[in-house]
Amino acid sequence: LDAETAAATFEGFAKLGAALGASFAAIGAGMGIGKIGAAAMEAIARQPEASGDIRSSMIVSAALIEGVAFFAVITCVLVLFV
Amino acid sequence: LDAETAAATFEGFAKLGAALGASFAAIGAGMGIGKIGAAAMEAIARQPEASGDIRSSMIVSAALIEGVAFFAVITCVLVLFV
Amino acid sequence: LDAETAAATFEGFAKLGAALGASFAAIGAGMGIGKIGAAAMEAIARQPEASGDIRSSMIVSAALIEGVAFFAVITCVLVLFV
Repeated sequence: LDAETAAATFEGFAKLGAALGASFAAIGAGMGIGKIGAAAMEAIARQPEASGDIRSSMIVSAALIEGVAFFAVITCVLVLFV
Repeated sequence: LDAETAAATFEGFAKLGAALGASFAAIGAGMGIGKIGAAAMEAIARQPEASGDIRSSMIVSAALIEGVAFFAVITCVLVLFV
Repeated sequence: LDAETAAATFEGFAKLGAALGASFAAIGAGMGIGKIGAAAMEAIARQPEASGDIRSSMIVSAALIEGVAFFAVITCVLVLFV
């Protein structure tokens, strides 16, 4: 195993990690935003007149998850190009 | 193991990761949007007159998940071509 | 295995770890903020007149998770450049 061989192997592991990492971030976002969205649906069904409040709180909390998940996917893209 | 062999091996790991990553992203989207969609059905059944509010909230939260999942799949495609 | 080879190999594992680490941070944020957001939706549905209090508490607790998750992702980015 020389240096050139190792560099070629390392490319493979980095790309494997980038692809799996991006998808795990998507699983995280799906679990989190899915839970929030489902609760928001039930909440609107119970209190239709509070749907504005419920929707704005839903968007705030979902956007926080979205922010971390997007940044994680961007990190994975960065792995490919650094 | 020389450099050429290692390069061929790394191609294999990168493609393995891209394929698994794309499918895990689909699992994440399926879990998240599935939960939101199911809750929206129940919510419309309980409060049919709030179906407009429920549908718009459903679309907003599902679109947030869709965004991350799509970007993850695009990252996996990118792995194949970089 | 000489020093140069080992350095090239370690690059691969470091990048694998950075990508997976960023996505695990996103899973953590998704699970945590998802639970908080879901509970906030139910709380607003039960007491619509307390929606302001509920939302501000939701934002404070979600921001605490966000802070740690973001710092973890930044650590993973840092792994790529150090």
